[in-house]
Amino acid sequence: MTDSGGAPLRGFPVEEYERRAGAAQALLAEQRLDALLVCTEPEVRYLTGFHTPFWQSPTRPWFVVVPLEGRPIAVIPGIGAPSMGETWIHDIRTWPAPRPDDDGVSLLAATLHEVAGAEGRVGVPMGHETHLRMPLADWDDLQEATNGITYHDATDVVRNLRMCKSELEIAKTAHVCGIVSDAFDGIPDLLSAGMTEREAFAAFRIDLLRRGADDVPYLVGATGPGFDDVIRQPSDRVIVDGDLLMFDTGTVFDGYFSDFDRYYAFGRADDAARRAHETVWDATEAGLAVLRPGITTSDLWAAMAGVLDAGGSLGNDVGRLGHGLGMQVTEWPSNTRDDGTVINEGMVLTLEPGLTWAPGCMMLHEENVVVRADGPELLSRRAPRELPVIT
Amino acid sequence: MTDSGGAPLRGFPVEEYERRAGAAQALLAEQRLDALLVCTEPEVRYLTGFHTPFWQSPTRPWFVVVPLEGRPIAVIPGIGAPSMGETWIHDIRTWPAPRPDDDGVSLLAATLHEVAGAEGRVGVPMGHETHLRMPLADWDDLQEATNGITYHDATDVVRNLRMCKSELEIAKTAHVCGIVSDAFDGIPDLLSAGMTEREAFAAFRIDLLRRGADDVPYLVGATGPGFDDVIRQPSDRVIVDGDLLMFDTGTVFDGYFSDFDRYYAFGRADDAARRAHETVWDATEAGLAVLRPGITTSDLWAAMAGVLDAGGSLGNDVGRLGHGLGMQVTEWPSNTRDDGTVINEGMVLTLEPGLTWAPGCMMLHEENVVVRADGPELLSRRAPRELPVIT
Repeated sequence: MTDSGGAPLRGFPVEEYERRAGAAQALLAEQRLDALLVCTEPEVRYLTGFHTPFWQSPTRPWFVVVPLEGRPIAVIPGIGAPSMGETWIHDIRTWPAPRPDDDGVSLLAATLHEVAGAEGRVGVPMGHETHLRMPLADWDDLQEATNGITYHDATDVVRNLRMCKSELEIAKTAHVCGIVSDAFDGIPDLLSAGMTEREAFAAFRIDLLRRGADDVPYLVGATGPGFDDVIRQPSDRVIVDGDLLMFDTGTVFDGYFSDFDRYYAFGRADDAARRAHETVWDATEAGLAVLRPGITTSDLWAAMAGVLDAGGSLGNDVGRLGHGLGMQVTEWPSNTRDDGTVINEGMVLTLEPGLTWAPGCMMLHEENVVVRADGPELLSRRAPRELPVIT
Repeated sequence: MTDSGGAPLRGFPVEEYERRAGAAQALLAEQRLDALLVCTEPEVRYLTGFHTPFWQSPTRPWFVVVPLEGRPIAVIPGIGAPSMGETWIHDIRTWPAPRPDDDGVSLLAATLHEVAGAEGRVGVPMGHETHLRMPLADWDDLQEATNGITYHDATDVVRNLRMCKSELEIAKTAHVCGIVSDAFDGIPDLLSAGMTEREAFAAFRIDLLRRGADDVPYLVGATGPGFDDVIRQPSDRVIVDGDLLMFDTGTVFDGYFSDFDRYYAFGRADDAARRAHETVWDATEAGLAVLRPGITTSDLWAAMAGVLDAGGSLGNDVGRLGHGLGMQVTEWPSNTRDDGTVINEGMVLTLEPGLTWAPGCMMLHEENVVVRADGPELLSRRAPRELPVIT
């Protein structure tokens, strides 16, 4: 489903949320949990459709409780009631936040008692890539107020829920990847030596928005003959002929991220940089060649790592060669030597091989794909093997 | 200090970080704490200068330990070493993240033992407006690995550190408030009836960037004859004559936020909306009139609330009439009936009176100020008392 301009429709139909809640409930039942408690933006949005940048404000905690049957229950600050009321959620319980003495704790405790019983088992994500978005002191108070209820790590529940994407989710990622691919293709017309890094960043960010992105929450990059800082903000450095430029962006459409980078050379590219680019491109190609349902993230890692090693890589400090992608710029799983996650159809992944081609000189390369029954489908437009030179 | 274009210089000199660390250490000593542990973006940036949107990725935890003497110590993923190396921090300890089995926990435990001793007292923010940005299971592991060390709520330490701003911080907020004020002044030329909400949002976001903002992490708004959802994302609703439009934005320059809103009417404004606008404007005026060092946030609340009551307010669900502002779009303190925080020179605050003028119709009004010895200095350009009408 797309609108008249070819963009996917905004939001999701109720059926999508019913499916998500049902899948959550099946996972809860498997783990003999009586309820799931989440309090982070992606989890709340995934289960309810509540979508607002208000999470930028750290003042107020937000809670969603998923019972074993029926729709999730929102336990939220009053300011969120109108927006939550527009979602498929019917049971919306509010308190007048901020109220530091009891910022939803007693309301949440009552809800958990009601849903899970006085001695129920409640799942809370406690593992890798999760955190508890509420004051630690309130978490202690909640445990005390629900004495009898036990809390158990539910990382696997949210991980399994979110790791395989629906076609409607994939369409949003594909759309934003298309926008970013177009913007990367336009870089040679947008940027030139003589601009500062800051001017280049601003021009690229505005270009992404003009092409239809909703927002650019993640944009890092660097310029110079070589660099190893791949999470940098721009400086006032002036781009000169002979420089490399790297942009890596997590750009958003309707709450779904792209995440890929591109490198360019200004005026000329030296042989070492060209070779590095070809090596990371070849490593990506090796990853694409093996990627299919049933292999593991470690298999995928090994295919790419082999090419990097053969290409003379001096290593890299990124710690992995890609990761999951969706409502966040990085999600489970990680493509590492030891991760070992079995890859399934519907997973959206980045392939992100990186190497150090000279001391202080790192090159990353990244593509976004969805895993189909017969292999990867590219969501980003495949980069050229040869390092592009802007003349 | 400004650059040639009038914008404040980027970043801060080392002296600013020395002052911050010294102030942190004095607060730690007062509370008989041996070290401070922080893991959230604003705290890490405040103490180190580490500034990257990489925090968008939930994969890796980041830690900073402040000892009682000397510079803070960074305990961070290897991917962050080059960026952290550009700051004033010398002692940078890294591990190859992601490593779910030990994502910095053993390295952090060793650092805490070294800094605080085997039976030291370590402060961690646990109170209102804070959270622990690391997996809860890792927090348990850390406590076990540092058995002997006790952890104590250090919310007051980070709150007191950050609540009063330096002149260099204030200059950044003032600069972005100027950009946003200009953009709001330009709205009548930018928007017109017939546009969709989504088009209006996109045009405004791009306009803010073209005027020199770095990013627009927070932009909400609504259109219609009236509305009560003040944290909304745009829809495809077409703006028509007779509509009200509200934009509320947290826009950023060099990591410092503005946070204020403006209302406009298209074509014509009805009397009830006009009166509501004058009432919230008058309430702000009453707040500005009493605001000076020594009063409390509750005094400030009372001055504004009195005008809202007299103006026939049916209440509002925001929960407060303004808040602190700086590295986050909302910070301590809150202007509430009970907050009672004593206001000091150098605090940057929003005054944000809101009222419901008819069922389902809310109006907020917001200005950003810094508290000076003799009263408030406006950072946002004061809105007109009369609701602007776009014709």
